[in-house]
This record gives sequence, structure tokens and C-alpha cells, in this order.
Amino acid sequence: MSKNVLIFGHKNPDTDSITSAIVMENFEKKLGHENAKAVRTGNVNKETQYVLNYLGMEAPELIDDVEDGQEVILVDHNEATQCVNNIANAKILKVVDHHTMNFVAPYQLYYRTEPVGCTQTVLFKMYKENDVEIDKNIATLMLSAIASDTLVLRSPTTTDDDRKAVKELEKISGLSINDFGVDMLKAGTDISEYTPEQVINIDSKLFEQSNKKFRIAQVNTADLDSIFKNQAYFEQAINEDIQKENLDFYVFAATDIINSNSKIISLGNDAGVVEKAFGVPVDNHTAMLENVVSRKKQILPPILDNLK
Amino acid sequence: MSKNVLIFGHKNPDTDSITSAIVMENFEKKLGHENAKAVRTGNVNKETQYVLNYLGMEAPELIDDVEDGQEVILVDHNEATQCVNNIANAKILKVVDHHTMNFVAPYQLYYRTEPVGCTQTVLFKMYKENDVEIDKNIATLMLSAIASDTLVLRSPTTTDDDRKAVKELEKISGLSINDFGVDMLKAGTDISEYTPEQVINIDSKLFEQSNKKFRIAQVNTADLDSIFKNQAYFEQAINEDIQKENLDFYVFAATDIINSNSKIISLGNDAGVVEKAFGVPVDNHTAMLENVVSRKKQILPPILDNLK
Repeated sequence: MSKNVLIFGHKNPDTDSITSAIVMENFEKKLGHENAKAVRTGNVNKETQYVLNYLGMEAPELIDDVEDGQEVILVDHNEATQCVNNIANAKILKVVDHHTMNFVAPYQLYYRTEPVGCTQTVLFKMYKENDVEIDKNIATLMLSAIASDTLVLRSPTTTDDDRKAVKELEKISGLSINDFGVDMLKAGTDISEYTPEQVINIDSKLFEQSNKKFRIAQVNTADLDSIFKNQAYFEQAINEDIQKENLDFYVFAATDIINSNSKIISLGNDAGVVEKAFGVPVDNHTAMLENVVSRKKQILPPILDNLK
Repeated sequence: MSKNVLIFGHKNPDTDSITSAIVMENFEKKLGHENAKAVRTGNVNKETQYVLNYLGMEAPELIDDVEDGQEVILVDHNEATQCVNNIANAKILKVVDHHTMNFVAPYQLYYRTEPVGCTQTVLFKMYKENDVEIDKNIATLMLSAIASDTLVLRSPTTTDDDRKAVKELEKISGLSINDFGVDMLKAGTDISEYTPEQVINIDSKLFEQSNKKFRIAQVNTADLDSIFKNQAYFEQAINEDIQKENLDFYVFAATDIINSNSKIISLGNDAGVVEKAFGVPVDNHTAMLENVVSRKKQILPPILDNLK
């Protein structure tokens, strides 16, 4: 068993999960916990790789599972289903997160979550509260994650605490979130090497509610046209998933990170729910949702309301 | 529905639960949340009443349940089973706690727990981190709760963070934990008006493990003799519970807060587990456990180990 305390985010990690692990390692070491070690539980995506390249930083080591009794710190998640294999037999020392909660621990631990847009906003506060210096690299990592989770502060998940942190992090890092953040998001939207099947599975979530089973997939893009010129291939991939998983419908949202809109493809027997949910016409299985960027806050709730 | 945000501890509240609600109200108001309101979900015990009398302070208002949609802050607990009625339909804004966790929230919230001896130690840190002044009354409430939960820093549940907080709280309050804390604990041990049946139910917990069903009850005392001169009546009350609940055994621990020992009465078909668990002879159903004061850390674990 590793004598290190392993720090990691959720499976299929995004920029917040990777960078929060690195930042938390720095924080723990500054508090004298030299055995803190950031790791990751999945591949680094292109958006995150852009940030690491900019800083000349290696990605944390990849792990597949943890050994029995391993001491760990979770960042950017708390639910066992999103966590590394064998987490049930590890000892969780700390959790720092910003998500909804479904957590059981039969022992005392440190747990800190807040209703903000990004884990790094919570970490930013912890540095402040403990008078730990935020250096230029740490500020860049924090800024990147907030830009990622809040789509450069334009998602409705953004809070005043996120904006306040960004203001100070811009100063320390010498970066503008509007420049660096958008470049980073664009780097993340490069799907040129992916098949349509791979694209819809970059971030696809399964929901089962009101006796309906459906998926909402989302991908960020700076170029809606390059996706929709291949609409027929995307529909084929989506219809295959509907067949395979016996879904009632499937919503695929391509979110335009420049203009803060989402264009969707909606298929399946109950695909009509989209017209009711968003009050927009669906034409050739597609619809444009103006000012919609957040699956959690803007796409899922109206769909759920119209399933009842 | 109350427009106040109601703040409360667990059912059957102890000194930490009552005082943490009062202190959290103060903290929230200092941060500008004027609608914060401490309440309680059960009777004030004699120990807590001693503290309130010392400060000339009223107990918070008693509530039986919360209305649908009521906004609340939980202190000193997190599990629904220990919480006020109808909590499932309330909106939990914050939790500040120091216990093991079993918590689900389908929305984001503020949650802060640490592996320390008392909720007030976490609140002490929150005041510090936010540069909120701890006045004399608040310091006295914090000191009282830490003295209560840690048996004046003598329980093995005590951590360095608790000791550090006490050092500063003694200065602000002008009180010595060894004087004020022991007087408070003694006030809490006054069971002169209680029947043996009431005494064993002051703090009795049911456990079901390894196919055995048992209770461990605990009461603090400054005078073991006054309890054990009535041993026959206590045995009668315990045996009635064993019959009624079909228990395999029952351990009643009278914890001497002056000398930091516990004298136990052990009854039931599997009462013999106590001799194995503690390596002490049981004579006339009783045994003296030297330096044992914590049910959670010193009584339950060796019993569980010897049930396997």
C-alpha cells in the first residue's frame, strides 16, 4: 500500500478534476503534509492538456484502482459511482467538492463543499483562510478550472464567489479569463480525430425518471457547422445507442462556447418532449436553444418538468 | 413557512447541539444573514441549562418539525434519523458537524465537517477564517460544548484542534475549563429526580451487529456510589428493556467524570462478551473499566471485535 495520501477527481476527469488534484497536493504540502500526491483516474482531455502544456507541467500519474486501506483525498466528486475502483475499501481523509451529495463514511473526516461553480473556488477560499500563498502556477490552474466549469463565467452555474476568485486569480496569473479561458475551451473542442460515436460519448449521462429512460449528451464547440455538416452520422450513432439501451429518447447538445447557445439533435419515440420543454420548433430533428449552456441547470430541468 | 433560516442540532440535544445553534446564529448574523434563527428540537438537559443560567440566556425556541420548503442549517448532526421531523421536505442550506456521515442532498449546499471532538471547534475555526470576532458569551458557549463533548479534554476523542481552541477560549471567556467545565458536568449529573428507567434512557443507543442486538447506555456521574446503591433497581429496568426489545445483552456504563473511569452493569444471555472485550472480571454483573470514558472509541469497538 502506498504511504502517500492519493488525491484525485472523478472518473473521465475534466479540467477541474485534474487541476484540483494538483492544487490540493500543493495546499497539503504547504500545510506540512509532504506525503500528499495528486493522481488521476482517467485520460487527460484536450482542454486540460492545453493548460498543462501552457505551464510545462506533466499530468499526474494514472491509477486504475486503490488498494485496501489506502488513504485518499477526493476532489470535485463525492459519489462512489463516480470514484475510482475499490474506493469502498479505502480510507477517505478529506473531500473538497461543489456537487450534490450522496456520501457515507463510518468514520470522521474533513469534508468541505460549497454551492459554487467550481471546486477551485472552494480551494481558493481554503488558501485564503489558511494564509497559504497562491503562486502564479496555482493561480493559472485555478483560473483554468473556473473558466472550464463556468464556460468563462457565462454559465448560470456561475456564482459571485467564482467571479470574486477570478478577479484575484487574473492578477496573480497575469492572464485574462476571456482570452486564456476561451483559447483553452477552443482547444478542448477539437474533435477532428473523433468519430461521431466517440463525440456523443465524450460526456453522455443516462437518466431514468418518470418511467422514461433517456440520455443527454453534451459537447463544447467553437464551430457548430463542422458538427452539423455530419448530422447524418451523428443521428446514426445516436439511433444505435437508442436501440442498444432501449432509450425513450436521446438529446445531443452541441454547445457553442463563443455565442453561448446550444444546438441539439433529438431522437427517439419521445423526442417530442423537446418542443414542449423549450417552446421551440424542432426541424429535421434539430433545434437551436438560445442562451442555453448548462445541462444541469437549463437542459435537464425543463425536460423533467415536461415528462410528468 | 417561516422566512427565517432555522438552525438546530440533533434530537435529544446535548450541550454541543444547543450551543452550536446559538453560536451559528451569531456567526450568520455577523456575516449579514439577519434571518438566521437558532431553535432546538428537544428539551434542554441540566448540563446545558447550567451554561444558559450562567450567561443569563434563554434557551432557543422548541420546534417539533419543519414545514415543507423551510430553509435550515444543521449543526452537530447530519443523518436524517437524528434530525427533526419532515427534514426530507426542507431545504438544507448548510451543515456544520464533526460526526460520521450518512448524507444525501440532490442540490448543492455548504457542508463543513472535521475529525475533531466537538462542533464548536469547527465553528471556532470558521470565526477565525472569516475574521469574525468571538465575544465573551460566544467563547463561553464554545468552551462549554468542548468541555462537554471531550469530558474536559480527557476523552480520547479530544484532538489538538480542540485543545488549541480551548486555550484561546479560556482567555476570551476568563474561565478555566477545569473549573467551569467540571462544575458544568457535575450539574449535568444530577439524576436525583429520575427513576432508574429514566436514567438508563438518558443516552441509550441500539446496535445490531454480527447477528446480535444490544444496547449500550451511558450516563455521566460525579458519584458512582449513589447509582450503585440502587443497582437492583437499575438491573430491573435493564432486564425489562432486554425482554421488551429481545436484546442479546445490555451494557449500562456509569462514567465517573472526576476520575475518568466507567463502572458498568452488563446483563443478558451474551453479557459475557464484556469479560472478553475488556479483560476484566465481572462480579455481580458489574465491572470497573479504568480510563474508559468514550462509548464510541473505548466501549463499542472492543465489544464489536469480540462478537465476531
